[in-house]
Amino acid sequence: MTLETTLAAIGPADEPAMAAARDLQARLTKPAGSLGALEELSVRLAGLAGTCPPPLPEPASIAVFAGDHGVHAQGVSPWPQEVTAQMVANFVAGGAVINAFARQVGASLMVVDVGVKIPLHGGDTLLDANIRRGTRDFTVEPAMTVDEARAALEVGISVARALVDGGAKCLLTGDMGIANTTPAAALVAAFTGAEPVAVTGRGTGIDDETHAHKTAVIAGALATHAPDPKQPLATLAALGGLEHAALAGFILGAAERRVPVIIDGVIACSAAVVAAAFAPDAVAAMVAGHRSAEPGAAVALAHLGLTPLLDLGMRLGEGTGAALALPIVTGAVRVLHDVATFDSAGVSEK
Amino acid sequence: MTLETTLAAIGPADEPAMAAARDLQARLTKPAGSLGALEELSVRLAGLAGTCPPPLPEPASIAVFAGDHGVHAQGVSPWPQEVTAQMVANFVAGGAVINAFARQVGASLMVVDVGVKIPLHGGDTLLDANIRRGTRDFTVEPAMTVDEARAALEVGISVARALVDGGAKCLLTGDMGIANTTPAAALVAAFTGAEPVAVTGRGTGIDDETHAHKTAVIAGALATHAPDPKQPLATLAALGGLEHAALAGFILGAAERRVPVIIDGVIACSAAVVAAAFAPDAVAAMVAGHRSAEPGAAVALAHLGLTPLLDLGMRLGEGTGAALALPIVTGAVRVLHDVATFDSAGVSEK
Repeated sequence: MTLETTLAAIGPADEPAMAAARDLQARLTKPAGSLGALEELSVRLAGLAGTCPPPLPEPASIAVFAGDHGVHAQGVSPWPQEVTAQMVANFVAGGAVINAFARQVGASLMVVDVGVKIPLHGGDTLLDANIRRGTRDFTVEPAMTVDEARAALEVGISVARALVDGGAKCLLTGDMGIANTTPAAALVAAFTGAEPVAVTGRGTGIDDETHAHKTAVIAGALATHAPDPKQPLATLAALGGLEHAALAGFILGAAERRVPVIIDGVIACSAAVVAAAFAPDAVAAMVAGHRSAEPGAAVALAHLGLTPLLDLGMRLGEGTGAALALPIVTGAVRVLHDVATFDSAGVSEK
Repeated sequence: MTLETTLAAIGPADEPAMAAARDLQARLTKPAGSLGALEELSVRLAGLAGTCPPPLPEPASIAVFAGDHGVHAQGVSPWPQEVTAQMVANFVAGGAVINAFARQVGASLMVVDVGVKIPLHGGDTLLDANIRRGTRDFTVEPAMTVDEARAALEVGISVARALVDGGAKCLLTGDMGIANTTPAAALVAAFTGAEPVAVTGRGTGIDDETHAHKTAVIAGALATHAPDPKQPLATLAALGGLEHAALAGFILGAAERRVPVIIDGVIACSAAVVAAAFAPDAVAAMVAGHRSAEPGAAVALAHLGLTPLLDLGMRLGEGTGAALALPIVTGAVRVLHDVATFDSAGVSEK
């Protein structure tokens, strides 16, 4: 029942709080509109919190959800599948880019094994919530059963709830899973109606031939499963990954708790599209961290009506684009807390 | 002699250090190129420092240079001129957006009165280096004498040297001066050859009629002074502002000390163009923080061959766009310090 409880608890943005934030922005000692995208972001976060100013998004917590993918057997990635588990070990040891960025921005980091093929042995920062040792190959059969997809969603919801109940004021999405851009592209195509060629990218680095093959694999899966975007759970089960499902739950959990969730790259964007299919009001909790170089990310963000904060040509995943965006989100909120008004500072208006 | 000493000390980027950084990036546990613009930034900063990895850009110091402008009499800004001094008081009191962002990113902040019209009293964080109480109206005569422009340049150099000698590993440019987008646009046009209409923006908010007038004012000044970009000191004196001159010196001082300087919006971009006219190798020290909504900023950055890190529609100045970029610059360098290699982490390569 966790999923249904969460969906029922997600509501729209609070309009009076948004109006109060717009009014406050106009009285601060700066020309109107001169903070560009940060002003609208501060208004959205006031609407999410239901108060102005909204709380500072500190402390922030990154959760990296890891899983493996049956479709790897189709040769969609040049990387061996064991790299998923090796990179999880690297996260736990503190040696990956997301670890460096988490330290940089002062965010905590946890890793959730929701579907890694190789059994992992963990450390304090690794949560074992493994539902299945990798999905099935969706070119042959649904990647997950509906029950598996629901269980993964509920892992994400539970992680979000636990982090927020533990004090987190902002959640950041992370992912790891060799071949996981393939299910991400399939989900974006299924939920947005975009053509496979418009959402299929080069992931962590593939050549033209592999890219054409990957596009064909995704198109074939869409033809095989004929997903109905009005049936989000069945669509997610057919085409998704366990980390995609968990991330969708994580986003829904943030929306339920009315805490902002910074969306990373194409994996998180595909999960955000799934979350919005379950609960359209969940978009109010989403902040797009960056524009991934993966084409499916831009399609997903356009579908959600979100504009990313950063555009640095990154395509790493792990939560790296969300982490780099955190100080900007905090800055946008801090303006509402800290900056003097024309009246209070004795500054003349034009 | 400070200016000549500084110019003589500025040299090119160190190629072996850049090669070492490229080699290290290729061995870190991430797909090659997946950090996009951050990878090339880390290479540039290694070249500046002459070592790999380059030092983390912490602690960082923001210097906000403030001045007034005779051309304000031509009605190029809707704001009264006393707002310059009022905003300096707001900076000293900690109530401006740049104060909030400085706290946010852990940077120190100092304010330098290099040319404010109204005498200021103030506070530990205000340096009185006033050279003249505002420039002359450049539609009538040169804004500064050559000696005044040199003195302002040397204020900037001295501030940069003092901050670096006091431990700063990164400098950030800030500015305050009602009407200062007008001299900034004139400088960008003079040094890049761009047409006045291509570099003239709406500053802190002007209507179509004022914008057309502002463009005509700039075009008139360029016709009157016929500036020669090969004579940077004379061109700066004719068209610049005292804070523009000081910022050019501040950038040159950073380049002399081989410390990165994050360039803010159109005022800082115009100063960066001046600095590059004095010493083309100074570009190696420059990091473009953000793409200002002011059109002259983009023209200046293209002239310098720099791509901004952020594009958030901001047009506030004060150093705000530089401050928000600082965590990204730090993140780019931190990757070279903290991230494990494929070998050290036992991660398979593709």
